[in-house]
Amino acid sequence: MRLVDDRRPGFQAELAQLWPHTGSSQVIGITGNPGSGKSSLVDLLTTRYRALGRRVGVLAVDPSSPFSGGAILGDRIRMQHHSADPGVFIRSLATRGALGGLTASTADTIIVMEALGLDPIIVETVGVGQDEVDIARVAHCTVVVTVPGLGDEIQNLKAGILEIADLFVVNKADREGADQVASELQQMQRLGVAEREIPVLLTSTRTGAGLDQLVEALEQHRRDLLEGDGWHHRELLRAGRHLRTLAVEAFLQTHGLAREDAGPRALLEAVVARRVDPWAAAQTILRPQEVLP
Amino acid sequence: MRLVDDRRPGFQAELAQLWPHTGSSQVIGITGNPGSGKSSLVDLLTTRYRALGRRVGVLAVDPSSPFSGGAILGDRIRMQHHSADPGVFIRSLATRGALGGLTASTADTIIVMEALGLDPIIVETVGVGQDEVDIARVAHCTVVVTVPGLGDEIQNLKAGILEIADLFVVNKADREGADQVASELQQMQRLGVAEREIPVLLTSTRTGAGLDQLVEALEQHRRDLLEGDGWHHRELLRAGRHLRTLAVEAFLQTHGLAREDAGPRALLEAVVARRVDPWAAAQTILRPQEVLP
Repeated sequence: MRLVDDRRPGFQAELAQLWPHTGSSQVIGITGNPGSGKSSLVDLLTTRYRALGRRVGVLAVDPSSPFSGGAILGDRIRMQHHSADPGVFIRSLATRGALGGLTASTADTIIVMEALGLDPIIVETVGVGQDEVDIARVAHCTVVVTVPGLGDEIQNLKAGILEIADLFVVNKADREGADQVASELQQMQRLGVAEREIPVLLTSTRTGAGLDQLVEALEQHRRDLLEGDGWHHRELLRAGRHLRTLAVEAFLQTHGLAREDAGPRALLEAVVARRVDPWAAAQTILRPQEVLP
Repeated sequence: MRLVDDRRPGFQAELAQLWPHTGSSQVIGITGNPGSGKSSLVDLLTTRYRALGRRVGVLAVDPSSPFSGGAILGDRIRMQHHSADPGVFIRSLATRGALGGLTASTADTIIVMEALGLDPIIVETVGVGQDEVDIARVAHCTVVVTVPGLGDEIQNLKAGILEIADLFVVNKADREGADQVASELQQMQRLGVAEREIPVLLTSTRTGAGLDQLVEALEQHRRDLLEGDGWHHRELLRAGRHLRTLAVEAFLQTHGLAREDAGPRALLEAVVARRVDPWAAAQTILRPQEVLP
């Protein structure tokens, strides 16, 4: 794991050896508004899956910390009661790097978790600047969590959400307005262009209500994907994203563009001096044989 | 502008012609918590700059809508009273694409605004999933807006914020707790490793208080950058980011990886079938002469 965090030389070769042992774990993405109780939900889900005898991976991703490399959050305090359980593997990642959102480290960590036989692997976004979209690209099932009382947050969420949600969860369902939010989410679907109906579940992490139903809905989603070509389709999407990330990473590395503040200095100076335009400069990078003006 | 939005063939050549006419406008990034009144702040700032005889560009970027191509938000309703003013140029962009955060379209739009002689150009993030970090990479001056009463939001913001903020604004300063927030932001700086002191300003978009001081602070920031090598340094960073984006875009295009759901299908199938690992596949893309196993 540390190998993955630090991206030391040789880590790719080791990961490549794990690759044949991956591909059967269900990756569950959990995203939604800050304050919607995602963390408690992940905590309770982990307990339920453990009761079913499953070994669980939990990966908390913080896209708001791009400047901090590696796993800065450590084992998360709220998950501490799982930390003595060898059947639960918890990892926190500050995402980083030039490409934004969930990075190669996320994909790499999931691969290690898959190879360890953890199933499901729950990926949760934490912090602000959450990318509720990126998570759908690494998950087989994306759970979008919301709560009553956020006002226009649901309006705000609307933009890309129908395209990424596989399950909606209205958490803190013991609060007033939960049914209202649930019916709004159902109405939103009728207005939208969703290909299939997205189930809306009510949960309460305080009382534990709805948790069994959520686990069952997640299991059902896995079965649905596996019965059709859904699972294979998601695997292709996931592999496509991973491949693109790796290829871009290697491309940037090769051309000295990997570091945010670095780059081919002479070329950048020529661009800033307006002697070369950025598009010509980009072509120079792609075709280094061309001579600078 | 439509050329840029649609990224039609030939738009790059036209933008390249504009390049020599850019480089002197101040790009101001405005970011911060949802509900902090960023939009009203941009509105009032625009009015002040107009009173100073400046032609103003306003670019609202919505990173929460990666699936929607082009300018979906249209001219923003709240800015409507500026819409009859030929000295104000307003543009809304839904960011999108594989690379996350602010995309090439943002940089391209700024270039057009620079070439039009608009100065300053105010770039504001809207919606959820805000990338408060990316904006710092296109701006000369990044303004981080917060308000009293958000509780741990300031805690949440802490992660990368000292590294990107050039100015802090505590908006809704007529509300209780504004001074408290301001002093917390000052304390935060003493605890952190900031290289320079980041000014903390109090504003109220309701009363207009502090707006003149904000304009003056922005002007001062520009002067400070221009007096030292700060401006040139930021221009290098901005050019570096733009160049990287363009180079990656061209790279993805060349290798059929540009579309999220597409990719070299046979290679992806081999990866999903675990016949090839993703790292070997990435190398195959970079060095197409190698033969697949």
